Amino acid sequence: MKLLEDKILTEGKIGAGDVLKVDCFLNHRIDVAFLSELGKEFHRLYKDEGINKILTIEASGIGIACLTALHFDCPVVFAKKTKTNNIYADVYTAEVYSYTHQRSYDIVVSKDFLSPGDRVLIIDDFLAKGSALNALIKLIRDAGATPVGAGIVIEKAFQEGGRELRESGFRVESLARIGAMSQKDGIQFVE
Amino acid sequence: MKLLEDKILTEGKIGAGDVLKVDCFLNHRIDVAFLSELGKEFHRLYKDEGINKILTIEASGIGIACLTALHFDCPVVFAKKTKTNNIYADVYTAEVYSYTHQRSYDIVVSKDFLSPGDRVLIIDDFLAKGSALNALIKLIRDAGATPVGAGIVIEKAFQEGGRELRESGFRVESLARIGAMSQKDGIQFVE
Repeated sequence: MKLLEDKILTEGKIGAGDVLKVDCFLNHRIDVAFLSELGKEFHRLYKDEGINKILTIEASGIGIACLTALHFDCPVVFAKKTKTNNIYADVYTAEVYSYTHQRSYDIVVSKDFLSPGDRVLIIDDFLAKGSALNALIKLIRDAGATPVGAGIVIEKAFQEGGRELRESGFRVESLARIGAMSQKDGIQFVE
Repeated sequence: MKLLEDKILTEGKIGAGDVLKVDCFLNHRIDVAFLSELGKEFHRLYKDEGINKILTIEASGIGIACLTALHFDCPVVFAKKTKTNNIYADVYTAEVYSYTHQRSYDIVVSKDFLSPGDRVLIIDDFLAKGSALNALIKLIRDAGATPVGAGIVIEKAFQEGGRELRESGFRVESLARIGAMSQKDGIQFVE
């Protein structure tokens, strides 16, 4: 998506360790009008799939998920990273490994909010090795619901998460796919 | 706001320890269309205040903040609960005490995303003792920006946070104010 690639090139920064920083519009400051345009694009891609629920993961997936859900006229459920006192005891659980923080954590969704009839679109800000996305798919399948596909804002296509999922037959739509990036050479996108 | 009070009465649950659970529309499953109506009400209340930014705190504030920001046509900034590898080093910091989890934690906002000219509306899902709200006000003031007021979905008016802030001259608009609640007697709202 040209609009997003331009935004990444003009506002994104590559920090130490060749980490992409898009805090300015995606995951700290949220450019709400812009993300709503991305949500419209996810709707164009998945509008014929009978989506009735969007699943994401706290915290930075919530904004893009809500702004996408408006176009689908459906609710959002966000998986929580820890089991708090305020959540119902009956939850679906999956494990995520965070390469950023180099540790595993559990994500949970209340059994009240995923049901066998659901056709669920997963929305997230990033896809790299696919640990979070695979965990979300597991939660949906554990509920007997259908994971229809994923809508990702930025895919690090030089890591294997997206490729492996597509090869397994799972639909992944990424609005920007980065083939390579470094402080030295900048960002190269792939189709 | 009658619409919200009715929603709390029909969909909310009072759990063990007289804790209000509104996971079904506010902070686990997000009823996006409904929260957009709440956002419209926040806009009605604050539309003449020259708001150019909305500040909230991860995770459960993000959805309502984004759905409110659409009505103001302004960006959202969400304060992060821990300093991650992906955030800029230069941050404003404040401490929050969580009575739910009985511990303190820091919240941070990058100095890039709060500026002296900003007129900031704080949006959050709950207000009880006011620890999070006071911390967000501190972040805004540390940046030299103006905290115009707060838009709260549910205020526990039997706790002191809202009263103390209003007495100090700070504007707090809560769409539902709970005067008392218990498993035995249910929920009573106050004006």
